[in-house]
Amino acid sequence: MKNVTIVGATGFGGIGLIEILLKHPKFKIKQLIARKDIGLSISTIFPHLSGYCDIIVDRFEKIDFTNLDLVFFSTPDKAGMTIIKDFREKQIPVIDFSGDFRFNSVSDYEIYAKNKGMDTVHHSSELLHESVYGLAEKNRDKIKNAQIVGNPGCFAISTILASLPVASNNLIEGSTIICDGKTGVSGAGRSSGESNLYPQRYDNINSYREAHHQHTVEVENILSKEANKKINLLFIPQIVPINRGIMTTLYMDLNKKLSTDEIYEIFTKYYQNDKFVKITQNSPGTSNVRGSNRCLIKPFIDKKTGKLVVISVIDNLLKGQSGNAIQNANIMMGFDEDLGIDFNGNYP
Amino acid sequence: MKNVTIVGATGFGGIGLIEILLKHPKFKIKQLIARKDIGLSISTIFPHLSGYCDIIVDRFEKIDFTNLDLVFFSTPDKAGMTIIKDFREKQIPVIDFSGDFRFNSVSDYEIYAKNKGMDTVHHSSELLHESVYGLAEKNRDKIKNAQIVGNPGCFAISTILASLPVASNNLIEGSTIICDGKTGVSGAGRSSGESNLYPQRYDNINSYREAHHQHTVEVENILSKEANKKINLLFIPQIVPINRGIMTTLYMDLNKKLSTDEIYEIFTKYYQNDKFVKITQNSPGTSNVRGSNRCLIKPFIDKKTGKLVVISVIDNLLKGQSGNAIQNANIMMGFDEDLGIDFNGNYP
Amino acid sequence: MKNVTIVGATGFGGIGLIEILLKHPKFKIKQLIARKDIGLSISTIFPHLSGYCDIIVDRFEKIDFTNLDLVFFSTPDKAGMTIIKDFREKQIPVIDFSGDFRFNSVSDYEIYAKNKGMDTVHHSSELLHESVYGLAEKNRDKIKNAQIVGNPGCFAISTILASLPVASNNLIEGSTIICDGKTGVSGAGRSSGESNLYPQRYDNINSYREAHHQHTVEVENILSKEANKKINLLFIPQIVPINRGIMTTLYMDLNKKLSTDEIYEIFTKYYQNDKFVKITQNSPGTSNVRGSNRCLIKPFIDKKTGKLVVISVIDNLLKGQSGNAIQNANIMMGFDEDLGIDFNGNYP
Amino acid sequence: MKNVTIVGATGFGGIGLIEILLKHPKFKIKQLIARKDIGLSISTIFPHLSGYCDIIVDRFEKIDFTNLDLVFFSTPDKAGMTIIKDFREKQIPVIDFSGDFRFNSVSDYEIYAKNKGMDTVHHSSELLHESVYGLAEKNRDKIKNAQIVGNPGCFAISTILASLPVASNNLIEGSTIICDGKTGVSGAGRSSGESNLYPQRYDNINSYREAHHQHTVEVENILSKEANKKINLLFIPQIVPINRGIMTTLYMDLNKKLSTDEIYEIFTKYYQNDKFVKITQNSPGTSNVRGSNRCLIKPFIDKKTGKLVVISVIDNLLKGQSGNAIQNANIMMGFDEDLGIDFNGNYP
Repeated sequence: MKNVTIVGATGFGGIGLIEILLKHPKFKIKQLIARKDIGLSISTIFPHLSGYCDIIVDRFEKIDFTNLDLVFFSTPDKAGMTIIKDFREKQIPVIDFSGDFRFNSVSDYEIYAKNKGMDTVHHSSELLHESVYGLAEKNRDKIKNAQIVGNPGCFAISTILASLPVASNNLIEGSTIICDGKTGVSGAGRSSGESNLYPQRYDNINSYREAHHQHTVEVENILSKEANKKINLLFIPQIVPINRGIMTTLYMDLNKKLSTDEIYEIFTKYYQNDKFVKITQNSPGTSNVRGSNRCLIKPFIDKKTGKLVVISVIDNLLKGQSGNAIQNANIMMGFDEDLGIDFNGNYP
Repeated sequence: MKNVTIVGATGFGGIGLIEILLKHPKFKIKQLIARKDIGLSISTIFPHLSGYCDIIVDRFEKIDFTNLDLVFFSTPDKAGMTIIKDFREKQIPVIDFSGDFRFNSVSDYEIYAKNKGMDTVHHSSELLHESVYGLAEKNRDKIKNAQIVGNPGCFAISTILASLPVASNNLIEGSTIICDGKTGVSGAGRSSGESNLYPQRYDNINSYREAHHQHTVEVENILSKEANKKINLLFIPQIVPINRGIMTTLYMDLNKKLSTDEIYEIFTKYYQNDKFVKITQNSPGTSNVRGSNRCLIKPFIDKKTGKLVVISVIDNLLKGQSGNAIQNANIMMGFDEDLGIDFNGNYP
Repeated sequence: MKNVTIVGATGFGGIGLIEILLKHPKFKIKQLIARKDIGLSISTIFPHLSGYCDIIVDRFEKIDFTNLDLVFFSTPDKAGMTIIKDFREKQIPVIDFSGDFRFNSVSDYEIYAKNKGMDTVHHSSELLHESVYGLAEKNRDKIKNAQIVGNPGCFAISTILASLPVASNNLIEGSTIICDGKTGVSGAGRSSGESNLYPQRYDNINSYREAHHQHTVEVENILSKEANKKINLLFIPQIVPINRGIMTTLYMDLNKKLSTDEIYEIFTKYYQNDKFVKITQNSPGTSNVRGSNRCLIKPFIDKKTGKLVVISVIDNLLKGQSGNAIQNANIMMGFDEDLGIDFNGNYP
Repeated sequence: MKNVTIVGATGFGGIGLIEILLKHPKFKIKQLIARKDIGLSISTIFPHLSGYCDIIVDRFEKIDFTNLDLVFFSTPDKAGMTIIKDFREKQIPVIDFSGDFRFNSVSDYEIYAKNKGMDTVHHSSELLHESVYGLAEKNRDKIKNAQIVGNPGCFAISTILASLPVASNNLIEGSTIICDGKTGVSGAGRSSGESNLYPQRYDNINSYREAHHQHTVEVENILSKEANKKINLLFIPQIVPINRGIMTTLYMDLNKKLSTDEIYEIFTKYYQNDKFVKITQNSPGTSNVRGSNRCLIKPFIDKKTGKLVVISVIDNLLKGQSGNAIQNANIMMGFDEDLGIDFNGNYP
């Protein structure tokens, strides 16, 4: 059994990790750390845990570094930025949920921080060169030996997985990918404000941060490297009244005339060794992946315009967050990649 | 007071008309006609009407043509196709909600019917040449004197309004417009099947009929005529768990470098005399138009890629259906265009 | 036209009033007053009002008492408690949405305040003797000449209307009425906290303040007076993930053996002159009254146990709040009671 | 490993069983049987199973009785009534989800059938004497050796668990228990009709079959036996727009003055050996048990009226259906009662 601690245990990311870890055969929760609700049992905050996990939430200052095999930072941007150094020094591997360690250069981080309207200074910039972008389907080998993994943004995961095969095969014509994204409300977290109250969200779809969403730069980074040329993402996020789930619909031109069968073949082959990516010819729905760590992808060619359309769905709190993090943790500890995050299901 | 009859009174389109007509100062409901629930009071089917409208639903065979000023066919495709001839002969103007009279040529109808998987024969093809596409913002003058108005599809209205200004100003580069559409469930009507049961819809987004939706040809028709060149619409519809509301997000290239301010100006000017179209610089939400006959449009230029993005929202049951139909009826009767469909509101 | 001002214009109560007043033929909004968002147009806060109502929100200190015929205080408890004196002195009638003026005695107010966990001191206690409980179906004549009307709590309205006929006819056996209440989330208002975020509300029902809800004392007051004996309400409120709507299910013993037909007759007769109360034999649903000022009531006798069951539904933001307030305002101004709050509808 | 077959595999009950069985360490699915969708892979019908369970759905006639350790009939009333005899003869234990085997006498069955508006003849009445009502918290020992288990109705489970301790301790005054029930929509199953379409369910609560729900007789049966006197249940079911979840709120008089602490103690003691029943002092919510086989119960005394109130919540598809069935199956096979149905969770 490996001991893990969750910093930021009381948010949706934290509870997502706890739920998986309770069922995981090889991880044991050592401590739950947070800024609020110190001294309360986690099952007071989330009553469904009662009897299964009643650990008392402790403060940052009480983090115990002994016998600790891995730490999750399920915290907002900047919250773990400096303290992560302490773990690095003690050689305790870190998986961070924020944008703090998703980039290898200060300049990329600055674009990210600017889009989010934050202070652009990175206070642990000396660690950026060794941080690994935590998407196994792209960086499995690097994650294996990583000490600091930046768990990707939920929209970024859905978008990158939907476009890696074409980027990798140099099939993208020009430099632009259009991504029309739809996300459930849980992506905004447990402390999101008035605009996410039930009465304002129910029976409503709206767009937000059009062409300025902070996950854009992550996607452009990865795809540009993969395609060996600058890729621009025109990303329009929209919020829909579902709880869990992201659907991204991508539109792009290809530099080669391909049929839907051929593109389906390319995607299937690219992901042949990836347990959590499934290529489909059916219309995907977020309910097909709710409660699962899977990404379901439908690529096809529109005959009339020749454009490639790729529709992908994930559970934003699992493959888009804590499920993906456990996948990374499994890899880092040398476990089977799907240990503890295999089939779950709760349909409907 | 003008007497109107609703054929197909018991669906969502019918109830939408009844609700408006009950408050309309110049229309009076003469008969409610349907195929099912004959002999029942409409308020038995829709209890909120009780005391306000208790008309007994009558069968097709009982339609009374006397003293009738206008008839609405809120029926599915083909249901009114032949009987509408009778109204035409008696010079009673018709507004039809189906696709039967949205086209002036048999060939266009055939594409529509094929996409919907229907028999492609049109049984009143001799009337097609005089039918008018019922979108006032485009065809106000023709509607004024029309005898047969084909009320447009809900997705078509949202998409056409979002692109008319650029088509009309010959600003579209190439031939392709991408339309990413999201619709609420009420668009599927009151008789839609198992896939629209609450448990299968809640917490779910899925795509459907990708690049094959039947409203595509309507949009291409109108825009091609307006732009004087063939326009292809790549349309990906998605269903989201809201009741009322459509959001369409359009992506296209322009043949001229324009700023967001300039494009905003072009849209505002184009719609300066249209009471029901509102151009905005804010992020639109379907709740901004729920219960309203308005279309809210946000056009902007993405600086990075130069592409034009246009986001539009409507209430699919009002501007997308019965509200738009009453707007047409007002025009046909010489009333103020917004009579009885002015501000409504029920927020949140 | 009568001039009215809304204090507390930016909450759900305020927007509810604005929506009705915009369509009301005899009221004109003079000022919109609030504590937050001063200087903004109300249509910036609620974009669906844009072009229909663009009044700038002003601060409390800027209330203009001239040419003012009536004022609505759509404010939380205590917010208008002292300032209402100024209106009283200037003989401007007040309708208050909080609990401040729902009681004629300090002692009753204290119970209310205690249940809500508030300071129990009433700072305008000298006005309590003349305040009128604003339920027209009970106090129509008093409301006509009232200067201060306390608009009832939403749960109280639904419960009182469901039990007045039996209380009035002295049919209640013993002293206990059980009320099982279910409310939509909008009842918690626009500033309710984290527990009402979409992800915590969706797919969830929970009980709260069991047997300690603050509306209990209002109901007990009214029913005890009507029945000429002490009535105790055992009230268990539950919150369900709908936006608008309250359903209350009442259970009580009768001191007389009655059939369902007889009890139906008693209810129908009691409300024969009340336009907004409708007795039904069908199963009521909140969607039957959504967007309406109606209360729909189904009373029946359970043969097995002899108990009376009464199920009632209202739209908590209309008959439960702003619709009821306009009904009061109509009465106070001598207008028809349903002026501007007649049929509305937006189904489904 | 024990081999099990599911008859009625394509409904919500069937998919619920499949999801649990896929994760269960000691059960293996042998066959999936249904009336519709014969020849299709179950993962075509429920795409989230793809790769995890791709068994082809087979017809009733193809049931293979060899090497079969247990069969689940997740079928509607009457569907398995006669065929279950075949299993009985071959000594293969049966767990039936319908009302067919919830009663030991024909007369009780007839009341049930009548309430549901069905033919009241029981075609396997000779088996009724040995059928066991499958509620482990009441009948654990009988279930152990049962050959035919009637899995209880979802509302019945929630109601019985909330009242067993007082019935068992002879604390119920008089003969009446009031049960105000609220259920999510999934309880109506995958083939429920038009009234459960998303647009008709969303933003709506309504009552139905008031005082005539078919689960009433099950509850009265069990409680009357336990209390040694006739207990009448006044049960008012209401449907709320959630997917999973039942809340039942019970009201009754006690024949003894007890404090909330004492009643809490009585409930806690009664269920001290029941892993899936949890007594709480907090306000329960259905989200506390979503995805879980638990029943959460809050009992308390209302000081004002002396009445006992008991609020209980379950996931209607798990403890209310397939989770409870697996609990029974575990007992029948001699496994730990919670094997494979321990903590699950998917919050929010």
